Amino acid sequence: MISAPPDTQNTLREGIIEFAFGEPDPALLAVELVRRAAAAVLDDAGPAALAYGSVEGPKALREKIARRSESREGRVCTADDVLVSGGNSQALDQVLTVLTAPGDVVLVESPTYNLALGILRDHPLEVAGVPLDDEGLRLDALQATLAELRAAGRRARLLYTIPTFHNPAGVCLSARRRQDLLAIAAEHELVIVEDDVYRELVYEGDAPPALWTLGREAPVVRLGSFSKTLAPGLRVGWINASRGLLARLAAAGVLESGGCVSQFGASVVGRLLASGGYDEHVAKLCRSYASRRDALVEALHEHLPDGCSFATPAGGFFIWLTLPAGLTATALLPVAEARGVAFAAGASFCSDADDRSLRLAFSLYDEATLKEGARRLGAAVTSAQAGRAAG
Amino acid sequence: MISAPPDTQNTLREGIIEFAFGEPDPALLAVELVRRAAAAVLDDAGPAALAYGSVEGPKALREKIARRSESREGRVCTADDVLVSGGNSQALDQVLTVLTAPGDVVLVESPTYNLALGILRDHPLEVAGVPLDDEGLRLDALQATLAELRAAGRRARLLYTIPTFHNPAGVCLSARRRQDLLAIAAEHELVIVEDDVYRELVYEGDAPPALWTLGREAPVVRLGSFSKTLAPGLRVGWINASRGLLARLAAAGVLESGGCVSQFGASVVGRLLASGGYDEHVAKLCRSYASRRDALVEALHEHLPDGCSFATPAGGFFIWLTLPAGLTATALLPVAEARGVAFAAGASFCSDADDRSLRLAFSLYDEATLKEGARRLGAAVTSAQAGRAAG
Repeated sequence: MISAPPDTQNTLREGIIEFAFGEPDPALLAVELVRRAAAAVLDDAGPAALAYGSVEGPKALREKIARRSESREGRVCTADDVLVSGGNSQALDQVLTVLTAPGDVVLVESPTYNLALGILRDHPLEVAGVPLDDEGLRLDALQATLAELRAAGRRARLLYTIPTFHNPAGVCLSARRRQDLLAIAAEHELVIVEDDVYRELVYEGDAPPALWTLGREAPVVRLGSFSKTLAPGLRVGWINASRGLLARLAAAGVLESGGCVSQFGASVVGRLLASGGYDEHVAKLCRSYASRRDALVEALHEHLPDGCSFATPAGGFFIWLTLPAGLTATALLPVAEARGVAFAAGASFCSDADDRSLRLAFSLYDEATLKEGARRLGAAVTSAQAGRAAG
Repeated sequence: MISAPPDTQNTLREGIIEFAFGEPDPALLAVELVRRAAAAVLDDAGPAALAYGSVEGPKALREKIARRSESREGRVCTADDVLVSGGNSQALDQVLTVLTAPGDVVLVESPTYNLALGILRDHPLEVAGVPLDDEGLRLDALQATLAELRAAGRRARLLYTIPTFHNPAGVCLSARRRQDLLAIAAEHELVIVEDDVYRELVYEGDAPPALWTLGREAPVVRLGSFSKTLAPGLRVGWINASRGLLARLAAAGVLESGGCVSQFGASVVGRLLASGGYDEHVAKLCRSYASRRDALVEALHEHLPDGCSFATPAGGFFIWLTLPAGLTATALLPVAEARGVAFAAGASFCSDADDRSLRLAFSLYDEATLKEGARRLGAAVTSAQAGRAAG
């Protein structure tokens, strides 16, 4: 069970198990690895780690990221294929500033990562949702949306997608659809922004290949991050894209002025990757999160009434639960909170997202707490159904 | 004399003294203070420093910043008047994303900080320059620009200004003009973005009061930073503004998604300020930079031919040198480089900036190197004049 540290993003409420918070358990953060790497980098390269950084970020880090992509994902690449970011939120913001114009249409999955919507809104972009199924983004729906836009004399500039261990839906885009999506993107000159933050957190088999890995000729911008595998507070991630797109992103005024957006953190992560221990840490995370996922899945099967459904995700942080017909997640939430459990209602994940579904994160709590949360949730659903039958 | 660390923003060229680089000397960065604070914060509050941070940033840091503003600048304020940023480049980017719409007119000083122009361009905003004199921004010219815009049915949304130890011009906005500027801003609902990064680097007397300190009712956004006083690679700064403006800035989607943009660095700086040693470090910086400024000023007086002019700045990093009539900085630059010295030509500081002037930074080099640079520059100007007379 976590304790709530001060100064962190989400505040736990007394007596509520917060399935809504999709973030790493603070107890699983790589504090010791960061401590050692920070001391080492300040001892050995203090002024370089603390000066204005090169726009692309520390070369040692970019090389380590490239070698890891090459060995684990099979895409031949070098440091020149990597631009260090300040995490995926900053990276998405920068991509939108550089590659879109206000009023452009941006396509997202429906549902999509809810907090990406605020970044899109600020730019300000017009968002169109394309539905998912259990194989990920529905390409028939994508084609239809593209055709509708064309008929209206408009064009989608960019697709923001989370094809691997989707947030919130937990699904992966199928192999066939990955290939087809790349072909569609190439045909329509649609830039794919691939949010790939959960790739390393895989609990059975291998993660599917990234769109960036598959689509050497397609306009794919892959956003990778150390937020889930090391620590989100470091604010260190990276961007992969074609050399041409990467050069445009690296020419952002904010980088030209301030240099690398995360110079100190990136220098620490570069040292950490060189020192070893990262693979073992990620393996430990996968064991912990797999066990938590299993505990929650088992408890949901035990406690949820008939009519609820969900798939077991093979990686990431999330279970996407669909309620029995007649219930909505938004209506269920106060009932659940009264019983000491909370979740993220489907409606928050896209303006047209399915509100019969809700997102449960299994990343934040230990197994016992997840089971108790499932018990409370089951009771809340049963109670809401009974209230509805009586009402 | 500095050595050029790898992975840093600017690369020194063999044999060239680079007066163009307006950045701290790596040898003066607070490596030891950061080392101790990083170790302490990871020992005591590791998970909090490495988790997603609160949108506003670590409270301990915000309180220290507020107390310092109160004691040194006399403005009563609390942590709630402070939003932690990722340095002034990130802060300006965020301010523009939240407070402007593409195509808006933004006013800047002419000359202004050259690399801010790239951030403005990316948003994309229309930039109008307002000239400076030795008392800072010319308010008569500002009024005329505002009137012209009004006559054209347009309105300036925002003024980006560096009123204290101006980059590149070295001047401070006079006390009288500070008051008048605030009145103009209030009348025109013009948001003033006050880039206040050089405030602590003062070499005689006190820095003038910030517009934010004077204008309690005016729409002022003050950008403060630890980049010059501790280390730019930390990417930690802060924003002061009215509670209403600060709430709008804190509601940026990128913060809602990623939390504090510099959680780890900000936690380290919070600890550093609590541990003591910051005031002594800043005092040491002021002694070092004052000595460098004096060395460069003396050497310029010795080596520059008649017809050159400059004022001695009371703080900051820069001397703004005006060349004899008939010479331009852009034409002088290759002549100077051939003699082993470089500078930033005036034309880069605004589209309509005076190219008879150039910027010399005295922050990066020791006194002996600055003197040698002045000698080379003097020879270059003399040579260019002779070439012009002969041509």
